[in-house]
Amino acid sequence: MKVAVGSPGTWSGLLLRTGQCAFAGTSIGVMVSTLGFSNYTAFCYLIASMGLQVLWSFGLACLDAYALKIKRDLHNPVLVSLFVVGDWVTATLSLAAACSSAGVIVLFARDVHFCTTIPHFSCGRFEISIVFAFVTWLLISMSSLVTFWLLASI
Amino acid sequence: MKVAVGSPGTWSGLLLRTGQCAFAGTSIGVMVSTLGFSNYTAFCYLIASMGLQVLWSFGLACLDAYALKIKRDLHNPVLVSLFVVGDWVTATLSLAAACSSAGVIVLFARDVHFCTTIPHFSCGRFEISIVFAFVTWLLISMSSLVTFWLLASI
Repeated sequence: MKVAVGSPGTWSGLLLRTGQCAFAGTSIGVMVSTLGFSNYTAFCYLIASMGLQVLWSFGLACLDAYALKIKRDLHNPVLVSLFVVGDWVTATLSLAAACSSAGVIVLFARDVHFCTTIPHFSCGRFEISIVFAFVTWLLISMSSLVTFWLLASI
Repeated sequence: MKVAVGSPGTWSGLLLRTGQCAFAGTSIGVMVSTLGFSNYTAFCYLIASMGLQVLWSFGLACLDAYALKIKRDLHNPVLVSLFVVGDWVTATLSLAAACSSAGVIVLFARDVHFCTTIPHFSCGRFEISIVFAFVTWLLISMSSLVTFWLLASI
């Protein structure tokens, strides 16, 4: 099995996982600090999905750090299969959450013009949280592609 | 390169592509026949994305049929790379369209109760179209995984 950039147990892999945690955490932070988010199912789902992403990426970041510390190779078929399944599930859920929230915010901004007609409606903060969720998805999709590539090239 | 179920130039591949075309076409048909869909950006985006999916899957279905007829092997690295890129792009766009429309319909059904309070609002038809879009995404994601696996196992 080749060692690819971003693969488990490497510095680039650790960096990717840390980035996923940071962006998902920021997305949650911005969303929960916005008044009225809990009235919308899509925004609650975004928080749940980003929460799962933080847990998964934090766990794998710890594993990467441990593997780097004890110089252990994580490119084992069983472990890589586990990473592939987890990465694909969390990546799909993250994209679904980001897109469903984006669908709702586009409805508010363009279709019913809530963002301009209701001044206390925090469209900007919702949009920032969704952008962070999309960045998280980009990073987790990179990890997913790398782990799937690793598994396929056994 | 191994011949996997659903790979380009096989009967199972042709069946998958035909299924993608059929479900994407039905999703478009149900959506455009529903009154008021054009007032919502997410539903228009669903039609655009499913339209792209129909074009892509129809093109590949024709290629599969041609390859089966003349018994030509399509497992060529350049062709498979092209299939991988096209499949991944259309799969991501299909999931994004289905999820953004699902976000909007969940808002209408659960958060603002449009489906019960406004009798002429065709929630059911929108939901059917979205379900067909999700089925299309499932089928195109299968094709994507198979082509990516083929490319990685060169």
